[in-house]
Amino acid sequence: MKTLVVIGHPELADSETQPFLKQVGKDWATFHELEAPFDIATEQQLIWQAERLILQFPLYWYSVPALMKQWLDEVFDEELLGPHHDRLVKKELGVVVSLGRPIREFQSGQRQAFTIDEYLRPLQGLALATKMKWLSPLVVSQFAYQSDTARQKLAVAYQQYLSLPQPVRFKDRVAWLTRQLATMQTNTKDTVAQQELQQLAALLSMKQEQLDDLNDNLRLVRETEGY
Amino acid sequence: MKTLVVIGHPELADSETQPFLKQVGKDWATFHELEAPFDIATEQQLIWQAERLILQFPLYWYSVPALMKQWLDEVFDEELLGPHHDRLVKKELGVVVSLGRPIREFQSGQRQAFTIDEYLRPLQGLALATKMKWLSPLVVSQFAYQSDTARQKLAVAYQQYLSLPQPVRFKDRVAWLTRQLATMQTNTKDTVAQQELQQLAALLSMKQEQLDDLNDNLRLVRETEGY
Repeated sequence: MKTLVVIGHPELADSETQPFLKQVGKDWATFHELEAPFDIATEQQLIWQAERLILQFPLYWYSVPALMKQWLDEVFDEELLGPHHDRLVKKELGVVVSLGRPIREFQSGQRQAFTIDEYLRPLQGLALATKMKWLSPLVVSQFAYQSDTARQKLAVAYQQYLSLPQPVRFKDRVAWLTRQLATMQTNTKDTVAQQELQQLAALLSMKQEQLDDLNDNLRLVRETEGY
Repeated sequence: MKTLVVIGHPELADSETQPFLKQVGKDWATFHELEAPFDIATEQQLIWQAERLILQFPLYWYSVPALMKQWLDEVFDEELLGPHHDRLVKKELGVVVSLGRPIREFQSGQRQAFTIDEYLRPLQGLALATKMKWLSPLVVSQFAYQSDTARQKLAVAYQQYLSLPQPVRFKDRVAWLTRQLATMQTNTKDTVAQQELQQLAALLSMKQEQLDDLNDNLRLVRETEGY
């Protein structure tokens, strides 16, 4: 999976969120930080080479910052789409959006009144018009106030968002974690840590087998009952 | 009603729609054509002086062009809103959006998949966050293909959008038309045209009286029937 993360942040130097995401995501994607003016041909090459395109930005007035809108307005032209509007077909379009307000406010009757999905309709429309597959957005809510645990969870969710087939199946998440544990085991020289990682991997594998058994039984019951 | 029309069009010289709207709207509003970079203080003064703020732009990738987004990102700051976020209270926020595609495509199951209302949620969110009154958007669909009659209707709808209380009541539309006919009558020196305008005004007035009578009767019936 060739993933391109396009970062549209007009004040990148002041961002806490973006360096964190880049650090935890650097082995999983190519990062491209937008700076105007754009060389259109170069930008279009980057997009054509990617399989999954992620637009990553802070929500400014409920949409992409002007910098990213400029990039969309200039780069997404007839040349990029091609004469038959099929050059982006089979590519995927994802969004990683960071919020300065709590996610719970994005709901009817709450302060931000509409959901993130509703506010991002223009990008969903872009995916439809360019025949890209739209991925459910990954929301980073008030990163500055997140605990270390929340940030660790975010790191995993982000790495999976960059690399796993979407929408993610539980089984893929488990397989992904198993691979990660194996890699960590190989990379560490601490024998205690190695043993712990091995135990974790074994536990995960056992749980997955139990789950598979349950699923098999469920299927049998369904067949027997004629559902 | 002090109406400020802010035009965010990156290629104004190529637009057919914008000069038309400016021509028919010039007696009804102040027109402000955006050009970056912005002098923030001047822009904010313009907004504070207005009672009705109209964002007027062509829909680019289902949202405002980058130029207008830059203006929103830079001008709508804490200073504009004030320490208690109440400096824009009681002002109105309207949108005049021009489309390159037919309006009928903006619907579920059609090519643009979502409605204009859905695509404009970010601006509606802006109105809510700044405590401005949101006005139903005025949509200009494929101006280039519009007949003269359609353009005349658009001119009236536009002038009313700039000047009448919103949402518009039928009675206000009629009163507005009556005033327009009177003004035209005063301004023309052609006696035949004067007579025709007078007849039109009389007809309009008579129809309004009939409608008032009908409404009175309806109210009576309702009261008698105890509704």
